[in-house]
Amino acid sequence: MTTVPASPTARTTTVPPPPLEHLRSPATRAVLRIQQCILTATRELLSREGFMEMLPPVIGPVTDPGARGAKQVDVDYYGHRYKLMTSGILYKQASLLAFDKIFNIAPNVRLEPLETATTHRHLAEFHQIDVEVACATREDVTALAERLIRHVFAACAGGMREELALLGQDVDALRAVADHDFETVSHREAAERLQAMNHPQSYDAELNWVGEEILSRESTRPFFVVDYPKGSRGFYDRESRTTPGVLRNFDLILPGGYGEIISGSEREHEYTRLITRMRETGENPSKYRWYLDVAREGIPASAGFGIGLERLTRAVAGLDAVWRASSFPKIPGVISA
Amino acid sequence: MTTVPASPTARTTTVPPPPLEHLRSPATRAVLRIQQCILTATRELLSREGFMEMLPPVIGPVTDPGARGAKQVDVDYYGHRYKLMTSGILYKQASLLAFDKIFNIAPNVRLEPLETATTHRHLAEFHQIDVEVACATREDVTALAERLIRHVFAACAGGMREELALLGQDVDALRAVADHDFETVSHREAAERLQAMNHPQSYDAELNWVGEEILSRESTRPFFVVDYPKGSRGFYDRESRTTPGVLRNFDLILPGGYGEIISGSEREHEYTRLITRMRETGENPSKYRWYLDVAREGIPASAGFGIGLERLTRAVAGLDAVWRASSFPKIPGVISA
Repeated sequence: MTTVPASPTARTTTVPPPPLEHLRSPATRAVLRIQQCILTATRELLSREGFMEMLPPVIGPVTDPGARGAKQVDVDYYGHRYKLMTSGILYKQASLLAFDKIFNIAPNVRLEPLETATTHRHLAEFHQIDVEVACATREDVTALAERLIRHVFAACAGGMREELALLGQDVDALRAVADHDFETVSHREAAERLQAMNHPQSYDAELNWVGEEILSRESTRPFFVVDYPKGSRGFYDRESRTTPGVLRNFDLILPGGYGEIISGSEREHEYTRLITRMRETGENPSKYRWYLDVAREGIPASAGFGIGLERLTRAVAGLDAVWRASSFPKIPGVISA
Repeated sequence: MTTVPASPTARTTTVPPPPLEHLRSPATRAVLRIQQCILTATRELLSREGFMEMLPPVIGPVTDPGARGAKQVDVDYYGHRYKLMTSGILYKQASLLAFDKIFNIAPNVRLEPLETATTHRHLAEFHQIDVEVACATREDVTALAERLIRHVFAACAGGMREELALLGQDVDALRAVADHDFETVSHREAAERLQAMNHPQSYDAELNWVGEEILSRESTRPFFVVDYPKGSRGFYDRESRTTPGVLRNFDLILPGGYGEIISGSEREHEYTRLITRMRETGENPSKYRWYLDVAREGIPASAGFGIGLERLTRAVAGLDAVWRASSFPKIPGVISA
C-alpha cells in the first residue's frame, strides 16, 4: 500500500513575508535546495534518454492562448505588440526541427485571476519544465512523465533527507510516489466520480480547481487524467481521429491535495487542422504567422508535456502553498519584489 | 605563445533566416550542442565550488538601469508598471541573504538601439550566467571568472570536436584560451592604447564598441579591463574608497574581435551610498523600494559578474555573429519569431 503524503493544509497558509525574512528563513533555503535537486535529477534523466536542452524565448509575437482563465502580458517590442510567454508550446513544436527530443526549463508569466491568490497553487510567475518528443504518442510521453517524476521523487528521497526533515516532510511519502506505478482515468470517469460525490463537474469542461483538489485528496498515488473534451484546451492539443471532440491529452494529478502538476498531449501539427482549431477556439490565425509559416512547411508530429516546477517542488517538499517554492514569489494581484 | 582564434569576420555576416531554415541547419544544431556543453561545464564548475543555482524573476517593479544605451521594457502587472529584467543584479544581491555563493542562468531583454543590429554582437533577448559571491573582492571574482572561462573552453575543446570541425573552428584556438593565464589592464591603459592608435576614447567614459573590438583584435589572449570611471556603470558597482571616481569593476574581453563577454564588480551595498549613487546616476530611489528596504536591513557585501551566454557561445564556436547562438534570435529592431 502507498502512503498518502502529508496533507498540504496541515499547516496554516500565510502570505509571503518580505524578501529579507523569506530568503533568510532556513525553510526557504531547504526548499530551494530541494528545487535544485529536482532540476538536477530532471536534467540527469532527460540527458540519459537523449534529450537536448534548449533556451526558448521569453517574449515573442504570440504565445500559448490555452492557459485557463489567465491573462497574457503585452510588451512593446520596437513598436510591435509582443507577448510574455505563458508556456513554451509553440517554440517546443518548432524546436523539433532541430532535435527529435527536446526540453526547456524556462520562466512563464500568466496574470491569473485574482481569486487564484487563495488556491495555494497559483503564481503569476513560475517555471515550467517543458518536454517535447517528435513522432511520439500520448502513451510514450505519459510513460516518460512517470519515469521522470518517479526519478525526481527518488532522487530527493535519497539526497535531501536533512532538508525534508527540517520541513517536516516524510521521506516515505516520497518513496510512495517513487516506488509505485501511476494510474490512469479518463476525464469522463473523473467527472463521474466527482458527480457521485455531489461535486458539480461538467463532462464538457476542464476539471475545476476544487474538483481536482478533491480527486487529489481521495487518491493514494499519482494518476493521469486523459481524454479531456476538446473545448477545454488550446488548439495545439490533438483531437482524436477516432473519437472527435476528445483530445489525445493528459494531466498528471498528485495525491494529497497537491493537484495537477503536469499537462501534456499529442500535438496538432497539420497546417489546415491548426487553422481550423484556432478558429474553433476563437484565435485569429493571422496572429500566429511565424508558427503557421513553419507548420505549412512541416512541423513534426509530436507529443509532450509541461511540468509546473514550483508545484512539483511544493509536492516534494510538502508545502502548504506554492509561493514557498519561489525565491521572489508573485502571488496573483499582489505587488512585491 | 597563444594562438589567436579565427577572426569572426572571416565569414560573411548575414541576417537570420526564417526559423525553419535556421533550426534545420546542421551548423545551428552544432552551435546549440556547444551551448549546452558550455552550460553543463558552467554548472559543473560552480557546483564543485559550492555555488547554489537560483531562478530569478523575469519581471519585477524595477530592474538594472545600467545597460549601456538599451531601453527597458514595461509590462502592466495587475495595473502596476513592472519591467522585464535587463540583468539579474538586484535579485543576485538579495539572493545572498539565502546563500553565500549563487548563480542564475536566465533570460534578459534589452531594447538595444537600432544601430546595434549591425555590431554582430547584440541581441534584444539573450541569456546571462549571473554569478555573485558574498564578502568577495574583485580579485576573488576575476580569478573565479578566469577559472570558469578556461574550464568552459577546455570542456568544449575536449567534448565538442565534431561540432567544432563542422563549424570550421580550430580546437587549438580553444586550447589557447584554456591553457594560459588571462591578463589585466586598467581602463586608463586601455584608453591610452586606443588613443595611441588614433582611436578616440575618453578616459571618463565606457570603452566604445569599436574601441573594444580593436583591443580585442590586437590581443592574443583574454584580458580583464579594470577600474572604469564611475559615470560609465550602474549605481551598484562599488566606487573605490581610496580612489574616488574609479569603480572596483571589470570587463573580460576575448581576443580575436569577439570583444566583451563578462562585466562584473564589487558591489555597493550600503544603504546611504546606494541612495547617493542612484541620485548621481539619475535614478529615482523611490522606484527601488523593495531593494532599498532589503539594503537598509543589510545586503551582504559582495562581488560578482554576468556572462553573456550567446556571446560566449559565439566565441567558443567561432561564429561571425551572435544571432547564430540563439535558436530563435532577436536582432534589435527586427520582428521575427
